[in-house]
Amino acid sequence: MVGSVGNGSMDLREKEKVEPLPREFDPEEIVRPKPPLETEGVGGEEGSGKSREIVLGRNVHTMCFAIKEPEADDEVTGEREAYMASVLARYRRSLIDRTKHHLGYPYNLDFDYGALGQLQHFSINNLGDPFIESNYGVHSRQFEVGVLDWFARLWELEKNEYWGYITNCGTEGNLHGILVGREVFPDGILYASRESHYSIFKAARMYRMECVKVDTLVSGEIDCTHFKASLLRNMERPAIVNVNIGTTVKGAVDDLDLVIKTLEENGFKDRFYIHCDGALFGLMMPFVKRAPKVTFKKPIGSVSVSGHKFVGCPMPCGVQITRLKHINVLSSNVEYLASRDATIMGSRNGHAPIFLWYTLNRKGYRGFQKEVQKCLRNAHYLKDRLKEAGISVMLNELSSTVVFERPKDEEFVRQWQLACEGNIAHVVVMPNVTIDKLDSFLNELLRHRSCWYQEGNISPPCIAADIGEENCCCALHKK
Amino acid sequence: MVGSVGNGSMDLREKEKVEPLPREFDPEEIVRPKPPLETEGVGGEEGSGKSREIVLGRNVHTMCFAIKEPEADDEVTGEREAYMASVLARYRRSLIDRTKHHLGYPYNLDFDYGALGQLQHFSINNLGDPFIESNYGVHSRQFEVGVLDWFARLWELEKNEYWGYITNCGTEGNLHGILVGREVFPDGILYASRESHYSIFKAARMYRMECVKVDTLVSGEIDCTHFKASLLRNMERPAIVNVNIGTTVKGAVDDLDLVIKTLEENGFKDRFYIHCDGALFGLMMPFVKRAPKVTFKKPIGSVSVSGHKFVGCPMPCGVQITRLKHINVLSSNVEYLASRDATIMGSRNGHAPIFLWYTLNRKGYRGFQKEVQKCLRNAHYLKDRLKEAGISVMLNELSSTVVFERPKDEEFVRQWQLACEGNIAHVVVMPNVTIDKLDSFLNELLRHRSCWYQEGNISPPCIAADIGEENCCCALHKK
Repeated sequence: MVGSVGNGSMDLREKEKVEPLPREFDPEEIVRPKPPLETEGVGGEEGSGKSREIVLGRNVHTMCFAIKEPEADDEVTGEREAYMASVLARYRRSLIDRTKHHLGYPYNLDFDYGALGQLQHFSINNLGDPFIESNYGVHSRQFEVGVLDWFARLWELEKNEYWGYITNCGTEGNLHGILVGREVFPDGILYASRESHYSIFKAARMYRMECVKVDTLVSGEIDCTHFKASLLRNMERPAIVNVNIGTTVKGAVDDLDLVIKTLEENGFKDRFYIHCDGALFGLMMPFVKRAPKVTFKKPIGSVSVSGHKFVGCPMPCGVQITRLKHINVLSSNVEYLASRDATIMGSRNGHAPIFLWYTLNRKGYRGFQKEVQKCLRNAHYLKDRLKEAGISVMLNELSSTVVFERPKDEEFVRQWQLACEGNIAHVVVMPNVTIDKLDSFLNELLRHRSCWYQEGNISPPCIAADIGEENCCCALHKK
Repeated sequence: MVGSVGNGSMDLREKEKVEPLPREFDPEEIVRPKPPLETEGVGGEEGSGKSREIVLGRNVHTMCFAIKEPEADDEVTGEREAYMASVLARYRRSLIDRTKHHLGYPYNLDFDYGALGQLQHFSINNLGDPFIESNYGVHSRQFEVGVLDWFARLWELEKNEYWGYITNCGTEGNLHGILVGREVFPDGILYASRESHYSIFKAARMYRMECVKVDTLVSGEIDCTHFKASLLRNMERPAIVNVNIGTTVKGAVDDLDLVIKTLEENGFKDRFYIHCDGALFGLMMPFVKRAPKVTFKKPIGSVSVSGHKFVGCPMPCGVQITRLKHINVLSSNVEYLASRDATIMGSRNGHAPIFLWYTLNRKGYRGFQKEVQKCLRNAHYLKDRLKEAGISVMLNELSSTVVFERPKDEEFVRQWQLACEGNIAHVVVMPNVTIDKLDSFLNELLRHRSCWYQEGNISPPCIAADIGEENCCCALHKK
């Protein structure tokens, strides 16, 4: 386990006492530090864990592998090599364990890139624009453009009308999309639902844009009534809108058509830019029947997805696709800066495109479709079993994100790497999450839960405000 | 060769005719597309190459490996696997060739991470802050913090006084450093020399900051006389200053002490923030005797370096170190955004820290010192030999970047992957650039050069404006 790797010959730093966290937070960023994860069960070091909470800005070295200056005779004795090999072997073991117990984050951990191991010897760098070759020859633009073409086709934008690149993560796609929007409408106001990913609000701050947070429905979707009211208060300035194709916490899909209608019917025709944050579901939705379509045939400006989520990839990455005409606006402005670079980053990871290319080629549309169906099926299985057990649970129609009552014990949450917010937790059913894994999770949850609530002193929390009364099984709402 | 990989069974797109480039550009981004690199020598397809130039915003699919939907029987026939294996094998061969012929970019291509191949099976992600553990267990923060500690010590900042993270590239470090500066002084003006990396100017635009470009000396260093004059015109607003620890083109090191003196003597005491862009030399300088010191004992705010440059890494990465107190300013502001994330990106590559940790542990300070000395020695060798041959050349004292007359033939430039700007080119002598490699480059250059200029109709260009009269060997300036 990761938490225990540092104990042996490693440098285990003292855990400093720190201040409690502000209440508001993002599920990707759960901050209670782990107590050393030595015990599988409940209890254990729970008490000590609860007492330590961290606030951002504290420089807490919970534990780390310090770098030590090699001894002069290290090369002779081989001790250095032995030391490093032992650290790595233990680390690898912990990764296996942590990968096995993982449910909370939307990462497909099921991939086999053995065939690509040979490429790790090269420093592959797609400097700047994917469509402009650099003199640096050790790149993978051939693969990158192949991947981009595939996504442009998925979202129905012609080869000569799109521009895009492979990013380092979903956040970079969002930062890029919002930036393009701002360059198209320099005095535009950014609208995003409260349940948008935090990177959207980070972008607003970075770019010095005014940002209006729009309310959400219980499902997590943007509330278009409130959106309309917000628009009407700011008639004089164009709108830059973030549309969530699957929110982080509830997997809610904003109603793109209704957003467009709201804009057009309220005087914003030709005065809006829509960025679709499709971090996870942007790649799943096209394969779901009945799902509303994300397509550039609608008046949207950009779409981003993450590559390490549904596709699966050893490192974070993403795909950003936008209209070429918007990039022309951006690049003509950038010229005077002596830069012809329309990406956010300069040097760019050249391995990620090859991983994506490899998976897309192997699986194809049909392969993804099969996997999406499996995920949705397994998500429904989990929801049904939780409901049967009398646990509050919600599953949005187009989503494989199962939202339910937060397990009472933090040790359990960490063990299964659940992402939590307030009184809710979620499991994101990815292709590597099998029925077996779900069963073993469910059994463990039920076993623990019977202890947590056995005395009747404490009851499971009411989470009707988060998931709706009809989904809540608290004492008040259960039928 | 990369340029020819697409020819066989690959999808070789038609090369579209496009418009010429604006003259002004950045050396990391040379844009003339390669003609298929079939011939080793001069001439060949040169004509056709010269006629095709690209402007940003054109979506040119020079060549790419298209993704094809698998046939239903692919799994049975194994044809898909065979096809992909053949693409990858050819690609690998091209990488070997391109890695061998590489001189222009400051990337150390000499690394052996075989021991880390086993980790490619894991989706390692250091979400958000390195010092705040997330519930996602498949991370490498233990390694990341070890690496950060090493750099903080190198730049003399105490463990409890620094904050930092491992970035995706040098650009991300610069974007972060300038952002921290802006958060500390929201109405500050950004000052950067004209020869600063383009990411600095990109940051100014992204962050809506006023930016003053400061002139440079012939060496490439910031001209502090002009800097002073610029400051005096903007007395009422604080200064955010980018200091180059090695410029991209000339490897020039700005005089940090003089910059600080200029600020303090002109009424900016306690009203400035300095970000040091140490992309390449930030890691080499500490090991050069006589070099001015980059240290947090001086009033600087942040330092960034690239990890894929001097250290060498399969993918781009970098290290960003700043003062913890500045991050507290940033994070208290970010709280209301429901984010406790002081990094630019959200999901972060967890492999890069392990690569860096591995190399730092193996080589240590002593190892780096040896390599730096070798690089400087080899750079001097190259400079001396070019000078002997009557070729205009400059080498800044603390640098391993050899600036010289741009080779007349673009085929030759591409073959050696030289970075060029106007009439100058450069070779960055990295640990993998041996005397043998330099000799083979020199011999080829001299052979070609005697053809280019044999008739006497054309003479080598004058580059006195770029490198100074004393270094220029054109007809006018040679003694």
